[in-house]
Amino acid sequence: MSRDPRTGAATAGPPATAPAELSALLAAAARDAHEIAATAPAVRAAWLTAVADALVEHTDELTALAEAETALGTDRLRGEVGRAAAQSRFYGSVAVEGGWLGVRIDGPATTGSVELRRINRPLGPVAVFGAGNFPFAFGVAGHDTASALAAGCPVLVKAHPAHPLLSARLGVLVSAALRGAGAPAGAFALVTGFDTGLALVDAPEVAAVAFTGSQSGGTALVERAASRPVPVPVFAEMGTVNPAVLTPAAAADRAGLTAAADGFTGSFTLGQGQFCTKPGLLLAPAGSGAAEAVAAALKGVRPGWLLTEGIAEAYRRGVADLLAAGAERVATVAPSEEGFAAAPTVLSAPARALRPGSRLLAECFGPVALVVEYDGTAGLREALDTLQPSLAASVISCGPADPDLPWLVERLAGRTGRVVVDGWPTGVATSWAQQHGGPWPATSRPDATSVGAGALDRFTRPVAYQNVPRAALPEALRDGNPWHVVRRLDGVPVAAAPAGTGAGA
Amino acid sequence: MSRDPRTGAATAGPPATAPAELSALLAAAARDAHEIAATAPAVRAAWLTAVADALVEHTDELTALAEAETALGTDRLRGEVGRAAAQSRFYGSVAVEGGWLGVRIDGPATTGSVELRRINRPLGPVAVFGAGNFPFAFGVAGHDTASALAAGCPVLVKAHPAHPLLSARLGVLVSAALRGAGAPAGAFALVTGFDTGLALVDAPEVAAVAFTGSQSGGTALVERAASRPVPVPVFAEMGTVNPAVLTPAAAADRAGLTAAADGFTGSFTLGQGQFCTKPGLLLAPAGSGAAEAVAAALKGVRPGWLLTEGIAEAYRRGVADLLAAGAERVATVAPSEEGFAAAPTVLSAPARALRPGSRLLAECFGPVALVVEYDGTAGLREALDTLQPSLAASVISCGPADPDLPWLVERLAGRTGRVVVDGWPTGVATSWAQQHGGPWPATSRPDATSVGAGALDRFTRPVAYQNVPRAALPEALRDGNPWHVVRRLDGVPVAAAPAGTGAGA
Repeated sequence: MSRDPRTGAATAGPPATAPAELSALLAAAARDAHEIAATAPAVRAAWLTAVADALVEHTDELTALAEAETALGTDRLRGEVGRAAAQSRFYGSVAVEGGWLGVRIDGPATTGSVELRRINRPLGPVAVFGAGNFPFAFGVAGHDTASALAAGCPVLVKAHPAHPLLSARLGVLVSAALRGAGAPAGAFALVTGFDTGLALVDAPEVAAVAFTGSQSGGTALVERAASRPVPVPVFAEMGTVNPAVLTPAAAADRAGLTAAADGFTGSFTLGQGQFCTKPGLLLAPAGSGAAEAVAAALKGVRPGWLLTEGIAEAYRRGVADLLAAGAERVATVAPSEEGFAAAPTVLSAPARALRPGSRLLAECFGPVALVVEYDGTAGLREALDTLQPSLAASVISCGPADPDLPWLVERLAGRTGRVVVDGWPTGVATSWAQQHGGPWPATSRPDATSVGAGALDRFTRPVAYQNVPRAALPEALRDGNPWHVVRRLDGVPVAAAPAGTGAGA
Repeated sequence: MSRDPRTGAATAGPPATAPAELSALLAAAARDAHEIAATAPAVRAAWLTAVADALVEHTDELTALAEAETALGTDRLRGEVGRAAAQSRFYGSVAVEGGWLGVRIDGPATTGSVELRRINRPLGPVAVFGAGNFPFAFGVAGHDTASALAAGCPVLVKAHPAHPLLSARLGVLVSAALRGAGAPAGAFALVTGFDTGLALVDAPEVAAVAFTGSQSGGTALVERAASRPVPVPVFAEMGTVNPAVLTPAAAADRAGLTAAADGFTGSFTLGQGQFCTKPGLLLAPAGSGAAEAVAAALKGVRPGWLLTEGIAEAYRRGVADLLAAGAERVATVAPSEEGFAAAPTVLSAPARALRPGSRLLAECFGPVALVVEYDGTAGLREALDTLQPSLAASVISCGPADPDLPWLVERLAGRTGRVVVDGWPTGVATSWAQQHGGPWPATSRPDATSVGAGALDRFTRPVAYQNVPRAALPEALRDGNPWHVVRRLDGVPVAAAPAGTGAGA
């Protein structure tokens, strides 16, 4: 069922995928997995470019569909379509560069005996559970889908219940684009229905699961996949409370405090606070007046709607639970009277309330944040130690000379996937050096990233070929470097020769 | 208790580590983890060199201690001491080269907005459960210990019950060598006792577990670590049946068949078959006479002793179970009459007996192997599909032109961590391109290796630093590349400038 968050009005959605149809789709993915894995990365990059082109071509239609089901705003959604297209192209370029293949060739002089050639091989069919809050960037054609295809794995996406009609349309567009670009039929499929999703995780054909969503949803999939006869990895990006720290030096400057409060408020209410990178907690020096400054900034925020009725209910309950756990309401914005409305809210709590096990330490999805004042460096250290590890953390400083920066950055780096200085955690660039992950329970696999070049690494497994004759080697491991990828020869990184020169070991 | 496998004679071993002592050792590891992580890799390489020097210096004493507790033979053990020393030096050199740090720096032109610097950070204290069958190479100072220290993690080793006195002595030597080289006290500790091992897996200070041993032991640790309040990764290398395939063309040559039978027999009886890479199954063409050739080769094998009474009992029971599951005894060598004796044995079974769930498909630790004749290519494909995935697999061919090589190598690569052509899986070189791992249940983490340069990767987690000023960056991420590591700048791999030139971005 498709629902409009602004009104709650319901429209019929696509039916759940029938078990027989799911079996056929899984069989097709398994059947074509080998062909997809053996396809040159440049060819798979062309498939991803076709997907990107299809997204761009249908921007207006997709934006309208998404807006009707998410109420996230057409400007934001239009931009996100472009972002998803750019991601697809980026992962294609990463596939072509080939560093993710990890090609290493050691001769007998290096090993002492044999010749070894090592490469990362695609795992096989990947089940993708996209996010509700980013219908494009983390949706049917989002990071997980594009990076898995780039790594040579077929993809089966479970449609998100928050935007069934958009998902169905995206599924048709992606399938058509891939087929049009020459990809085999098993390269991609969209499936629908809760039970279908569980069957996907259980399916013997599935080699890995990628998930973006809640801690409860991610943990359930992790446990389910671990209890399969043959366990498979689940890369669940779940999200926690991302802290932002205002240093004493930064808070001492009145203009700086106001700017920080404006930035914090803009970040935690962006997309109605429905970001896994939302800064849910501001730690500010005692007596800084940070809570009041954030309350003032909140006055400029327009209320909106949450994605689903369930999220809206969970939000109201979550805010009530935070109040019951010792928080006080500092300011709130009256919500809309219709639909899945949410009231943007700032709470405060004393530092002593941040005790292990407290509800104050857990995420509340939606436009709410907590301001906590710390008492000196010792108080700040103590507060930081009680927090759950997170996807990201911010420090707002008075500039590079801020004396608290070095220890704070190091402390936060030990408990997060990304440390931001003088900026906010929302907004995750898709590039080579990105890390979108974090220690448990921010993710189920702290060594993995779901954004950036490293995203491909999740879907591969290394294999060493010992004294294997040329004709039996995978193409990328052959002398002459036919795929023109960066490699390590006897431990020494060697840049790829440009395509067409025929050079190489 | 220490026991002599040749006689069963028992000597008192060291007492179990007291809970209070374990707590103190864990606290020291946690306390010093940050210092060890921040130490330049070149300094940690010097620590590992000191460990290597200590091993070499005490070769005679260590060999004698090991021989008394393992009966693996002094030549083999003496060689293994040297191998463990070489490993320590190798992991030190890998640490210095720095590729494992995965340093990537993207400027605003690449990300579209911010500056991102990404590095792999050490996880923290690692609990190591070494193997019984390689008291040096996979023991107290083996691959896991050396690669974890190289990656900047403190190590706590649980002493293996098969060689308690050797473990204790190694613990003293490693501790002294590390302290002498300037490592902090928390860098290394040896602990003893079954319950101590469980407490280690449960300890909040422990960030990862590395294990080498049986499927039952590894699986138990995986489940235990997954049920911690904060789960930690367990890298369990467990081992399965490693298949060897004799191609029709190879078997057609009488001399080739004899050589293959000799090689197979030497490999599966090496170290009394107590190798996780033991080729436990030979798949040979129907009518090739492979079983008889292996039986003939077995006549030259001298019987020996297994590591422990438990392993000897499990071996006798395992061989009986294989016979009960449809295997027939082809040849056996009479065992010694004393101690933990084992009878080297060759069994055969019809291909139809290789059914899912059959005992014939599971590992039997010790000097036994199964020869199965396959009926044509179709029969071989079918047999291969029923096998458990493995650490390694071999193909014996008639040379590079063997028409069955390409499909066999590709088929095996999909189910193993290392494919060997015209060689045997025992013997694992420690080098850049090595992969010692494999799909579940060969290991609990198919993406990981416990041997080779990739071994360090297990003990790190990436963190991105966004717009972090120079003074607050980890040293390896700073401009000027002070650790002289290979890096990616805006996606392009850049070789390290030699130490001392001061060049770099």
